[in-house]
Amino acid sequence: MIKIVCDLMGADKNAKELVSGPIKALNEVDDLEIVICCNELDIKDTLATLDYDKSRVTIIHCTEEANNNDIPTKIIKQKPNSSLVKALTLCKEDDDCKAYVSCGATGVVLAASIFILGRVAQIRPALACVLMGKKGKVCICDCGANVDSSPENIVNFAKMGVSYMKALGIDNPRVRLLSNGAEEKKGPEAIKLAHQLLKDTNLNFLGNVEGKDALDGTCDVVCADGFSGNVLIKTIEGTAKTLFYDMLKMAKETNNEQEAKVLQKTVYNLLDKYDYNTKGGAILLGVNKIVLKGHGAGEAETFYNMILDAYKLAKEDMITDLKNRIQ
Amino acid sequence: MIKIVCDLMGADKNAKELVSGPIKALNEVDDLEIVICCNELDIKDTLATLDYDKSRVTIIHCTEEANNNDIPTKIIKQKPNSSLVKALTLCKEDDDCKAYVSCGATGVVLAASIFILGRVAQIRPALACVLMGKKGKVCICDCGANVDSSPENIVNFAKMGVSYMKALGIDNPRVRLLSNGAEEKKGPEAIKLAHQLLKDTNLNFLGNVEGKDALDGTCDVVCADGFSGNVLIKTIEGTAKTLFYDMLKMAKETNNEQEAKVLQKTVYNLLDKYDYNTKGGAILLGVNKIVLKGHGAGEAETFYNMILDAYKLAKEDMITDLKNRIQ
Repeated sequence: MIKIVCDLMGADKNAKELVSGPIKALNEVDDLEIVICCNELDIKDTLATLDYDKSRVTIIHCTEEANNNDIPTKIIKQKPNSSLVKALTLCKEDDDCKAYVSCGATGVVLAASIFILGRVAQIRPALACVLMGKKGKVCICDCGANVDSSPENIVNFAKMGVSYMKALGIDNPRVRLLSNGAEEKKGPEAIKLAHQLLKDTNLNFLGNVEGKDALDGTCDVVCADGFSGNVLIKTIEGTAKTLFYDMLKMAKETNNEQEAKVLQKTVYNLLDKYDYNTKGGAILLGVNKIVLKGHGAGEAETFYNMILDAYKLAKEDMITDLKNRIQ
Repeated sequence: MIKIVCDLMGADKNAKELVSGPIKALNEVDDLEIVICCNELDIKDTLATLDYDKSRVTIIHCTEEANNNDIPTKIIKQKPNSSLVKALTLCKEDDDCKAYVSCGATGVVLAASIFILGRVAQIRPALACVLMGKKGKVCICDCGANVDSSPENIVNFAKMGVSYMKALGIDNPRVRLLSNGAEEKKGPEAIKLAHQLLKDTNLNFLGNVEGKDALDGTCDVVCADGFSGNVLIKTIEGTAKTLFYDMLKMAKETNNEQEAKVLQKTVYNLLDKYDYNTKGGAILLGVNKIVLKGHGAGEAETFYNMILDAYKLAKEDMITDLKNRIQ
């Protein structure tokens, strides 16, 4: 049985609107147990309408909500009844509990996760997200947890990204390093040094990648300092949005009704692929449990996807693989 | 009369295929004089077929071609007959000569430009490019000349980007700083310090911008350290290409002929907007003359566009404005 803690507070939507996601996941997987942390009163009515195996669901009543104004190192004392603190504490103390999923405020969720769950080998944790490239999934790690990363940090980001993609089913993931040119002498000092260190690892390292080629299918993991990795993922999102805007404008301006329909349909079909916010969550790598963090605007479906992802990662024992690579 | 030096060597295409570009520009502007640097024999036949005012064209015969293996500080002695050295030397020595345009190898063109033309106030030059955003042109500066930029460098990149956009007709350009969040405390140390310095300038500085919002029409100049700026522009290019690839794949797979046609037409219409390579050139800012550098795969049309841009910038006396801002 794999136990996953689900923090339904701190998101834009109320737990009432989110709770059907975890239940849907529960109903699809037999050996899954879910702990739901939120105000019990919020979800009572919705749960009563749903059909599920109650023996595999525990509800922990929480009366406080964490937000980005909370100080992560103090939140345990200041908001002991927040879903964030209760869920992470349970996740830390219960060996059967493999993962924590949340759509709460990014800053405090990441910091509290690191603080409460503890870091693997005292390394810097990283945030990784998976985007759809031309030929499949591409993991960007670090995509935003760090700025001013050292070459050694970046090597660890690569190793953790590899553990993650391996657990997602990619055999011997191909790694590239985000830089401003393909040649190994390209980039800031930290990137050039990281390149040399990466060559000395046993990773399947294939050299640098430029922003224009990150999604082209020649790598499974793009390792990056957290700052340029963040620019990368946000620019992908922004460019897609700008292009969709252009296409919808074309649809509006054309006199050809058929053409307008094709344009609208195309945007609708592609929208999902280039939106890394709603489908699932980013993963915090380098802490002692699986932590998935969905967008604040996440929906029930986001929790459903995150729980299935977390279940898969737990089944594959990603954390043990990651620890072995780091040590 | 505005004189522009046009270096037709070092590009993928031979001067023979490129020379119609400068002549087309010449025929559109009365007070323009063009100096063409290349092997005279290559363009003789093509020029004979074109109709233009010969009194406004000078051809400087060059027998050597510069490439990225040349050492910029040594190229004056090693390849004195290269179009690069001859063109830049003329540009430096002739006060009437306002601009140099080229599609040669980036590294050596930029380095030789800095070395021969000299830097403004000994600052670090930057590369700027103009992209089409949702509501008009957006300048990204620096987009690739530097890595490891200091906060002071970044402030100068902003000032130079402003001079450039002003010369292109934007009144009081709005400046934003590329970072990983909108809040001023976001980003690596250099970016956070640059943010504080920018607030103290008389620039129309509106705070940070994330990669996802760079093209959204809320700023005219995105100033960036050259590394993340490069990730930004290349990711825009790459994302657009990946989306076009998806759309053409949809066109191929659909059984609806009308739909396939609309998709193909849409890609064709948008392609141009998201290709920062072929339309014109990036500008090297911070040297004593106007330097435009087009993509190596540039065509006659690229030279045509670069010359018209350079003419406009010279007319507006961008270099004097830039010097005033920097000093």
